Amino acid sequence: MQMQEQQLALRHGEELARLGRIAGQVAGIRKMIEEERYCMDILVQLKAVRAALKKVEGNILRRHMNHCVVQALGGGQQEAEQKVAELQKYFQIDS
Amino acid sequence: MQMQEQQLALRHGEELARLGRIAGQVAGIRKMIEEERYCMDILVQLKAVRAALKKVEGNILRRHMNHCVVQALGGGQQEAEQKVAELQKYFQIDS
Amino acid sequence: MQMQEQQLALRHGEELARLGRIAGQVAGIRKMIEEERYCMDILVQLKAVRAALKKVEGNILRRHMNHCVVQALGGGQQEAEQKVAELQKYFQIDS
Amino acid sequence: MQMQEQQLALRHGEELARLGRIAGQVAGIRKMIEEERYCMDILVQLKAVRAALKKVEGNILRRHMNHCVVQALGGGQQEAEQKVAELQKYFQIDS
Repeated sequence: MQMQEQQLALRHGEELARLGRIAGQVAGIRKMIEEERYCMDILVQLKAVRAALKKVEGNILRRHMNHCVVQALGGGQQEAEQKVAELQKYFQIDS
Repeated sequence: MQMQEQQLALRHGEELARLGRIAGQVAGIRKMIEEERYCMDILVQLKAVRAALKKVEGNILRRHMNHCVVQALGGGQQEAEQKVAELQKYFQIDS
Repeated sequence: MQMQEQQLALRHGEELARLGRIAGQVAGIRKMIEEERYCMDILVQLKAVRAALKKVEGNILRRHMNHCVVQALGGGQQEAEQKVAELQKYFQIDS
Repeated sequence: MQMQEQQLALRHGEELARLGRIAGQVAGIRKMIEEERYCMDILVQLKAVRAALKKVEGNILRRHMNHCVVQALGGGQQEAEQKVAELQKYFQIDS
């Protein structure tokens, strides 16, 4: 559907914008280190960047899993098992 | 298959045995608190119990996901979408 | 101070009560596995127990760190360094 | 000591180099999204960046805590309590 494609492109742009902000935050932290700013202030910023990355990760993961369902129904068991194996590896529950 | 059922029962027993050990660890920690043992020793034990629970969780989750694929393929899109929604809620990536 | 001792005993009892509830939850999960209940319901319970343990851990850790300050001031640098080394090991940031 | 200052500057440069690599990884992920690369490949890269950030965080935190001890002993109880409060906030164990 065209509408779905537009929505996907929109979210696409959202993730790029988020990563743009994250790149800016990383540059800011480098500057903080160069300026020998207080350690705890740097740590709080590093943690914020990790949280921002996790947010992007969650968004992409959610859409990936939603998309998986359609693929699993159309692509047969082998493809579905591969998708599940990828997710298990990602969540470190393979072994 | 009968063999698969035996294997499932085996792993079933494995998880029960692990949870039995975890129950023992929790009882041990309660005793440590009653005896006013050193905080850091208690903390290390609490962390160990969480790691043991996470191990059980990983095992059950891995089997659930393996099983999900088969169900998702056989049960139609609505059932598959529900399984995915459950996983997303579990991983806190819903919404 | 006597009041502080009473408060400590109170929180002491709080942690024991929490661990009592956690022990009950673990017993409940074992029963769920024996009754072959739905995997995702078991996983949600396991995750809840981990969160409850983390809460107890956070409470004990907070009090331990508060106590550390007093010890660090009275006990000299060697004792203080040992406390910090223990915390670093606990947070897995040693080396 | 001069030697200690040199060592600090060395580790300083280490963290800057690491953050430089992280900035490069973030730029790479943005390109992957623009090129509409496979979601799971993007997720694996995002997770790797988070792990790299956590490594930098761990290094800075370890040195901060080592440094804290000396300050806490020299600076009096109020300063020590503030350092501990900062750490508790960072670890999200402040009540």
